[in-house]
Amino acid sequence: MRVNAYAAPAAGQPLALTTIERRDVGPNDVLIAIEYAGICHSDIHTVNGDWGPQPFPVVPGHEIVGIVTETGSAVTRHRVGDRVGVGCMVNSCGECANCLAGDEQYCVKGMVPTYAGTDRDGTTTQGGYSTHVVVDADYVLSVPESLDAAAAAPLLCAGITTYAPLRRWGAGPGKKVAVVGLGGLGHMAVKIAHALGAEVTVLSQSLKKREDGLRLGADHYHATSDPDTFEQLAGRFDLIVNTVSAAIDLNAYLGLLAVDGTLVNVGAPAEPLSLHVMSLIGGRRSFAGSLIGGIALTQEMLDFCAEHNIGAEVEVVPADKVNEAYERVLASDVRYRFVIDIKTLA
Amino acid sequence: MRVNAYAAPAAGQPLALTTIERRDVGPNDVLIAIEYAGICHSDIHTVNGDWGPQPFPVVPGHEIVGIVTETGSAVTRHRVGDRVGVGCMVNSCGECANCLAGDEQYCVKGMVPTYAGTDRDGTTTQGGYSTHVVVDADYVLSVPESLDAAAAAPLLCAGITTYAPLRRWGAGPGKKVAVVGLGGLGHMAVKIAHALGAEVTVLSQSLKKREDGLRLGADHYHATSDPDTFEQLAGRFDLIVNTVSAAIDLNAYLGLLAVDGTLVNVGAPAEPLSLHVMSLIGGRRSFAGSLIGGIALTQEMLDFCAEHNIGAEVEVVPADKVNEAYERVLASDVRYRFVIDIKTLA
Repeated sequence: MRVNAYAAPAAGQPLALTTIERRDVGPNDVLIAIEYAGICHSDIHTVNGDWGPQPFPVVPGHEIVGIVTETGSAVTRHRVGDRVGVGCMVNSCGECANCLAGDEQYCVKGMVPTYAGTDRDGTTTQGGYSTHVVVDADYVLSVPESLDAAAAAPLLCAGITTYAPLRRWGAGPGKKVAVVGLGGLGHMAVKIAHALGAEVTVLSQSLKKREDGLRLGADHYHATSDPDTFEQLAGRFDLIVNTVSAAIDLNAYLGLLAVDGTLVNVGAPAEPLSLHVMSLIGGRRSFAGSLIGGIALTQEMLDFCAEHNIGAEVEVVPADKVNEAYERVLASDVRYRFVIDIKTLA
Repeated sequence: MRVNAYAAPAAGQPLALTTIERRDVGPNDVLIAIEYAGICHSDIHTVNGDWGPQPFPVVPGHEIVGIVTETGSAVTRHRVGDRVGVGCMVNSCGECANCLAGDEQYCVKGMVPTYAGTDRDGTTTQGGYSTHVVVDADYVLSVPESLDAAAAAPLLCAGITTYAPLRRWGAGPGKKVAVVGLGGLGHMAVKIAHALGAEVTVLSQSLKKREDGLRLGADHYHATSDPDTFEQLAGRFDLIVNTVSAAIDLNAYLGLLAVDGTLVNVGAPAEPLSLHVMSLIGGRRSFAGSLIGGIALTQEMLDFCAEHNIGAEVEVVPADKVNEAYERVLASDVRYRFVIDIKTLA
């Protein structure tokens, strides 16, 4: 099956309209007619070559929502006509301890990323900036009908990336949670942490997005460019979710944690960070990292978002505006996620 | 009350016999006739001036076991004739959230260390290398009679320092725990982790102490100087307790953790460490720190050690061998803790 797609022909080149081949629907596969695909900062890093050589041409997109149009003979989880989603992975070994524990993203043999990866049949995966995709049914999520399809797309990456650490480290009633950075990930973290019942503080470089932050569910909003912030909030938080991939002054942020508090990074700066161990010992604090989430947890997140009426704040763009959208992401000029309307690709 | 003591007259000077004043026994105080005082590496760092200026003369010693010889009018927890212990702190504000939560070591106003600290009455605290000490009864532990008094002394610092993270991060049946370094702290960590029911692995520079490690309760013993160790044990441990204060290759050790595993430092290298955040994100791992433990937890640890017949492995020395013992600690020539027999000071 040959389908329309937007692909980067080589590192740093603008994306352009092309066609790609999708595999035949196997016994456990689902064919999805894609409605929306979110634009994640990872897409841009990948096609720019920031993360090393890639198997160009690359079709990015791992925040996919669409409708099932065909199912393999063995598929029972999904039916034709269902609204479904695909996130950052489309396969894993299914047999290692981590897969069996529902942590497919930590598959010992390596999970198969939704694009620019090598699937278990040896083919190169291609992502959601295309009209259709064929995915193993076990890696396809059910998207509750009550969610707006465009606003649901970013949940598949930005949503689970922030939901996972909030759940793992117990965000909920009586807990004080800070979110560092109010971008694509940060705005989801604020919404979800608020819905989980935590007291939410945004720590952003400036107060520019303060009104937005409070509207999205934050109880407090502080500028990290103001040194008073670090004095005033010392020892305050049970959990800090850092959505900023740039290097931060780790020791300053660790000082904001209460005893037993955790600072968790969901992004990785390219350079190693410098850490004074005393910043941890002085409060039995932890510095942790978290990568997306397993399939079962992703489904839990989607159901939670439906229950609490949570979607991403999106700006829907036609496929031929992808390169422009990339420029605006790099300039932090988006509130808060671009989503491609895939019917403009048909 | 004037009592005999061994004190460092100035930074880097050998300790020498002297006399110091102990305060009158107040309503909530306990007077203790000291039997044994352990020699902790911290004592050496402090008197050598490694940790900044100190209020010399300094009498070190925060691993104290002795007998109550007098109690203040308000004391109900301890009686004359009881065997008791004193650890790293002798006071705290008692009113902040951390004190109220039983984490007096993280007192917001600062806990009062057992020596070289300023007590709440403004006097300088002096430690256990002396015949007697007067301590607020709330900071005095009960030492079960079944424990050998000399072997119990190091429990007050080395014991609680390792017990606290083992408990906090769930060492127990079905858990794989590694202990980095088999010294004063490490040998206690091995004994306690084993008694808690965990599968225990020692990670030591060489295999020199392998027989000892296995005898103390380790199930496995590996040399960190052998690069194969890091390949062979990749992704294995739920918890690694690092008792080594020297800088380690953090990313290599983090690679030994399973998903959701924690590497916890109980010592702080002087220099900041370099950490690749991807080492954490790639397995939802944590890097943490832990400082001794609160009074209630210290009592729990002493009772646990009594129940499991756990004491430190000690070499008892007379007071006039303290400087020699310091030299041997610095040369790692002790298995595994020196304890001063305080009756040689009388």
